[in-house]
Amino acid sequence: MYSKLFASSVALFMAALVAPIASQPRGPEPITPIPAATVSNPMLVELGKKLYFDPRLSKSGFISCNSCHNLSMGGSDNLKSSIGHNWQKGPINSPTVLNSSMNVAQFWDGRAATLKAQAGGPIANPGEMAFTHELAVSMLGTIPGYVLEFDRVFKTRSIDIDKVTTAIAAFEETLVTPNARFDKWLQGNWKAISLDEQEGYALFKSSGCTACHNGPAAGGASFRKMGVVEPYKTDNPAEGRVAVTGKDADRFNFKVPTLRNVELTYPYFHDGAADTLAESVEVMGRIQLGRRYTAGETAKIVAFLKTLTGEQPMLTMPQLPPSSDLTPRPEPFK
Amino acid sequence: MYSKLFASSVALFMAALVAPIASQPRGPEPITPIPAATVSNPMLVELGKKLYFDPRLSKSGFISCNSCHNLSMGGSDNLKSSIGHNWQKGPINSPTVLNSSMNVAQFWDGRAATLKAQAGGPIANPGEMAFTHELAVSMLGTIPGYVLEFDRVFKTRSIDIDKVTTAIAAFEETLVTPNARFDKWLQGNWKAISLDEQEGYALFKSSGCTACHNGPAAGGASFRKMGVVEPYKTDNPAEGRVAVTGKDADRFNFKVPTLRNVELTYPYFHDGAADTLAESVEVMGRIQLGRRYTAGETAKIVAFLKTLTGEQPMLTMPQLPPSSDLTPRPEPFK
Repeated sequence: MYSKLFASSVALFMAALVAPIASQPRGPEPITPIPAATVSNPMLVELGKKLYFDPRLSKSGFISCNSCHNLSMGGSDNLKSSIGHNWQKGPINSPTVLNSSMNVAQFWDGRAATLKAQAGGPIANPGEMAFTHELAVSMLGTIPGYVLEFDRVFKTRSIDIDKVTTAIAAFEETLVTPNARFDKWLQGNWKAISLDEQEGYALFKSSGCTACHNGPAAGGASFRKMGVVEPYKTDNPAEGRVAVTGKDADRFNFKVPTLRNVELTYPYFHDGAADTLAESVEVMGRIQLGRRYTAGETAKIVAFLKTLTGEQPMLTMPQLPPSSDLTPRPEPFK
Repeated sequence: MYSKLFASSVALFMAALVAPIASQPRGPEPITPIPAATVSNPMLVELGKKLYFDPRLSKSGFISCNSCHNLSMGGSDNLKSSIGHNWQKGPINSPTVLNSSMNVAQFWDGRAATLKAQAGGPIANPGEMAFTHELAVSMLGTIPGYVLEFDRVFKTRSIDIDKVTTAIAAFEETLVTPNARFDKWLQGNWKAISLDEQEGYALFKSSGCTACHNGPAAGGASFRKMGVVEPYKTDNPAEGRVAVTGKDADRFNFKVPTLRNVELTYPYFHDGAADTLAESVEVMGRIQLGRRYTAGETAKIVAFLKTLTGEQPMLTMPQLPPSSDLTPRPEPFK
């Protein structure tokens, strides 16, 4: 027993000598690795993928889910606020669809409890896809390829919005990004992140960022006030969670965004006001934590944040089943 | 010698007995099979694919080549006319990018001699992507992932519009659709197309459609007058080839569109006025050939046209390199 303990101590000491700059997490960490997606119903996912990419779910025939949650661009549109039907300016920054299955709820104010509930929103929102559920469903019913596919998946030829959103949500659940360098480090690969990145993570933890940005998604799990120590100044009129609960205490509470793939999902905040990660870290430190990071500290936290970029979903572009002679043609300019 | 000839004759006779309804092309056909793409420089093609999908080549950050030449939708947008920057209505129907390398020239009026010359057009067109070549190139130069990739492909870090369009064109050259059922039939598979489809093809040939719709792309090889026998009535002001040549004889001459994948590339004609294949066949027969097809004839020609749908390119969605802090942010609403 004694010799065993002694041997372990020596081993630890040796390890410290061999790798003085790399260190390993010592215990439970506030951010945990993202598990790979498990696909239980591939046909449902495939149907959902088609619908996700299908602009015929919009009035114009031009806007699909992928327009604002672009899977070539971190599942976002990289715009301050999105472009909707007739080039309308969206009210808020489009959050990434990546890892969104881990969110406590969907939308910045959490007004949709599930991905499925979310998926129906933009289709019928006059400022986004500007269609209706009824028109979308009846349109799909005129496309033989879809009718066959819904039948194969749901064992009925009757398409409804519930099945449409079920399929889209099933596809979105597969959009996770495992194996980020940070996860590899968490899982024992000491060299997966650099010393600067480790120091950035240590500072991220010690200054309190992980109070909100924790769990596998490094966020997404709670609603928090934007502007705890200092008020956040913005000309964006969104008031966050209060729109859902009606409670004054929820005014300016927003869903904490995930920091996974944050390198890809610029610009930042619900109003998209921060163009860069450095700016975001500076603002968050100041208004949430009352902390003014030095340029060097900010750079290290930014370096850490970039280790959260995971493997992006490898997707084959879907081939959408063609419209039939009966399919109503989109009306982008009416 | 005699016995060999005799044996061949017997074999032919037997074959005719075995397959009395299916027939094989007897000699050279006006439409020929599409060869598969050969990729000589995969890194160049991969770079071109990224650029093709990158909305940062537009002023808004919202419109990419794929917006109007959507590779999930037969390489077109399935709209009468496209939607450009600030929701501007395009002047003409967006032609498919599929098999466009076989076109005699690009655009309906052939104003670009090559795919490369075409690729620069929409980027700088104020009604389409509304950017400038200068801004596009300087934007790309701020994205480290692109700088590395251009360097790897072109052996220089200086990006210019010539390299950008070279890469996009190289990608587009791979977008061919071989192995349509019709091609399989041409290549000896008697059963690849049905009797109705064969009769549709026979009628397509005998009534003169192949005068314009010939070659591997079943079109794309010449400019022809829209409205030979009867004038074509449209409120679309485009006048076709005359805009390029200035010759009065070219007024209302348009590039003959490819019929490959025509099932997917609705609506039809330069003004997108025909919603269905049946309508297109009826109009073409009447105004180009002075022929009024019966409903049954039209149905057979439509059935034949649908045999021209080939294998769509299998594409993995590209992952676009993220912008850096120096990359100018798009301005969709300015």
